[in-house]
Amino acid sequence: MIRPLFHALLVGTLLHVAALSAASLPSNNKTTRNVILIIGDGMDEQQITIARNYLAGASGELILDTMPLRAQVQVLATEDQVNGKPVYVSDSANTATAMATGVVTSRGRIATAAGSNTPLVTLVELADEAGFRSGLVTTASVTDATPAAFAVHMSSRRCEDPDTMVDVSIYGFEIADCSAELKANGGNGSISEQLIASPLDLLLGGGRQRFDATAEGTDISVESLAVDNGFVIVTSPQELLQEEPGERLLGLFAQGNLPVRLQGENGRQAEAPVRSWLNYLNDYLGSAQLPDPMNCEPNPDFDGTPTLAQMTEAALTHLSHDNDKGFFLMVESASIDKQAHERKPCGSIGELAQLEEALGLALRFASRNPHTLVLVTSDHAQAAQLVPDQSLFADYPVPVFTPGRIARIKTPEGSLMAVNYATNDFIMGEHTGAAVPLFSNDEGAGRISPFLQQTDIFRIILEYLDLR
Amino acid sequence: MIRPLFHALLVGTLLHVAALSAASLPSNNKTTRNVILIIGDGMDEQQITIARNYLAGASGELILDTMPLRAQVQVLATEDQVNGKPVYVSDSANTATAMATGVVTSRGRIATAAGSNTPLVTLVELADEAGFRSGLVTTASVTDATPAAFAVHMSSRRCEDPDTMVDVSIYGFEIADCSAELKANGGNGSISEQLIASPLDLLLGGGRQRFDATAEGTDISVESLAVDNGFVIVTSPQELLQEEPGERLLGLFAQGNLPVRLQGENGRQAEAPVRSWLNYLNDYLGSAQLPDPMNCEPNPDFDGTPTLAQMTEAALTHLSHDNDKGFFLMVESASIDKQAHERKPCGSIGELAQLEEALGLALRFASRNPHTLVLVTSDHAQAAQLVPDQSLFADYPVPVFTPGRIARIKTPEGSLMAVNYATNDFIMGEHTGAAVPLFSNDEGAGRISPFLQQTDIFRIILEYLDLR
Repeated sequence: MIRPLFHALLVGTLLHVAALSAASLPSNNKTTRNVILIIGDGMDEQQITIARNYLAGASGELILDTMPLRAQVQVLATEDQVNGKPVYVSDSANTATAMATGVVTSRGRIATAAGSNTPLVTLVELADEAGFRSGLVTTASVTDATPAAFAVHMSSRRCEDPDTMVDVSIYGFEIADCSAELKANGGNGSISEQLIASPLDLLLGGGRQRFDATAEGTDISVESLAVDNGFVIVTSPQELLQEEPGERLLGLFAQGNLPVRLQGENGRQAEAPVRSWLNYLNDYLGSAQLPDPMNCEPNPDFDGTPTLAQMTEAALTHLSHDNDKGFFLMVESASIDKQAHERKPCGSIGELAQLEEALGLALRFASRNPHTLVLVTSDHAQAAQLVPDQSLFADYPVPVFTPGRIARIKTPEGSLMAVNYATNDFIMGEHTGAAVPLFSNDEGAGRISPFLQQTDIFRIILEYLDLR
Repeated sequence: MIRPLFHALLVGTLLHVAALSAASLPSNNKTTRNVILIIGDGMDEQQITIARNYLAGASGELILDTMPLRAQVQVLATEDQVNGKPVYVSDSANTATAMATGVVTSRGRIATAAGSNTPLVTLVELADEAGFRSGLVTTASVTDATPAAFAVHMSSRRCEDPDTMVDVSIYGFEIADCSAELKANGGNGSISEQLIASPLDLLLGGGRQRFDATAEGTDISVESLAVDNGFVIVTSPQELLQEEPGERLLGLFAQGNLPVRLQGENGRQAEAPVRSWLNYLNDYLGSAQLPDPMNCEPNPDFDGTPTLAQMTEAALTHLSHDNDKGFFLMVESASIDKQAHERKPCGSIGELAQLEEALGLALRFASRNPHTLVLVTSDHAQAAQLVPDQSLFADYPVPVFTPGRIARIKTPEGSLMAVNYATNDFIMGEHTGAAVPLFSNDEGAGRISPFLQQTDIFRIILEYLDLR
């Protein structure tokens, strides 16, 4: 089956990856140990199947599907109190905390304990103590919940920079307050300030605006403080590629989250069916017009944005350069989730394709560097549902259609794929609570049981790198 | 964590299972080979997580979770034409056909090829040719799509008995016509007629009404014809348990599908939030009242119904009695799906608990009969979504709620679990298209790769039993 759109979209990246011959990738010695943890934010079975259908065809395979080990991961959260009761649906803050610290916490928290706000030691801190390098790569702002939880401690994911520490509000409604964590109050300051004070060797993604603000207690910006702390700042793919291996890198490639690769035709997203007046009077009368089918197309705003594979390649090069000990690298494809919140299936598909390319690179690196554990997982499930384009009940002469919003995507193999978003009618949809997949290369053999808890991912990495 | 409700509900069955000591289970000789294929209809990751949270707690484990092998299964369907394009969401007919025959077909078809209507050879037929016994156990009508596809060939799942072969209609709307498959037209007759003419040694479930009709070309009922064909008819758990091992059994324990074990408090199901008049005027104004939380409770109609474990135990006893060759047994918990269609999460949870008990029995049988492959899978994903009881966006002072229907279940561990159904507003919700899990005991080692197609399940069983 020919998939011309996918081919056209990926051809640049594929050529780029191909040019990265195995010979050009660094290799390390026998005692070196590396972990590459790839997180597809919101990448549940629905998202994976939707992306597979589009990218590889209904009976095709993703790189994910070729991974030799696969498990299912129980996603846990609690109320925000000590010994709180279970909460059945998580967010990216508590789930990243589970993976980064081995502790179940409450939604919104960044490596801090539910109720007590006790800081929880992270993988980046443990790796640093043991002499490993570490890096975080994301398509979100680098201050976003997933990367933050690996290196920072904060009561709320919202306190991303010095200007968003007190009475953080959106549309005039307070959603967080981290006053107690101001440096003036004996804390460590905002997420961006903590990131540049952390032992991280590399931090690549978006969120430049979070580093523009004046660092608390200084008269310079957080970005300037990062330079004082030894970071080299890069802001374009060209600068990223030009840096000599071994630099301590802070890559900030957008003001906020990075633009995504794919979008719906003319920027379309999932839309509500249009009901006839008769259908408004009675659900079983009249008719409903489903949205027109659409193609996915390249997002013009993506031009000039580094791909996740380019950032991953740079990370592997810098972290492994002249490094016999090894490294811990977390790579996040963040907008599988963010585009699902906004009901944009093409966006999620493109970001899952980005994860696939980064995974391809990671596996190639691992093939040259034998003691490299490659893990891929999701943090939580999301709202999107692959539903029948023709209802199971289409034989009944009544209108049968979603009460939410739906996108009908023309797939490269010539079928229509309908994606439903109906968890709420708010500007952003909800997460869902299903267990999520974990994939591993052969290095995970004997370490990955078929069913585990998200906190086990922390312990698997801890044991693999012998961090105690 | 104590789960009193669950304990109270299961105590009868658990005692029953405990009484079935390993010593009382039959064991076979070294060349005997058995396959027990357990299908949770519609049992996707959302359903499993919802059931786990209720039955074992958020951080608990189901028996499913202890299975040593686990994979993900690609679910495939096509348009109803030869070489048709992919259809991304399946039904129980085409998926059971995939598992029973190794061929991808179109929705609604029972072991017949898309477009051509060519009969596809089933596992029951192949097992019989090779000298294996075979049985089908289900909580649905035995003429329902999943069991039917293992032993019958029919263009439409709707043609379940001699009275539903021509111009089958529901509410006056024609939904199927199997005239060409009438015996008078050279066909093999309806599903119930084909079942009793099949080589099946055992068939247990509901659907007695399908055997009341007069068999085509005769003046006796299909049930009477079944007796003529050597079947012993049983209609109650007592009769089932009293039958001597080795009989050819047709168990019909309800007129239609078997009643389910659990229901919502006072029979409640998922309900639409009640919106204030202001909210009708503007989505971001006014308020919406979510349905009150509810408990799950025993369904009084379940009294007198055999449990899936009781039927499975009877099947194992009868199929293995004085049988050195072995058997193929399919066990379906059908109403995980049917209750999800009806937006009844308690019902689905109770039927997943039934599957767990049947699985426990199957594993115990396998421990006494070493060459017994136990597979558990789902046929397709379903509509239910585990959503946050407290919205991720609850800090915003606007009403955020599902456009569909929601049930808020009080779990035994004291939390609230919200289950959303919002694929349509019809009397029955839609299936979804995500890949589904496959679990296996150790006998599957070397046979189950982490990712496979649903048709591979047919091939795995074929090779395990050496059917060619």
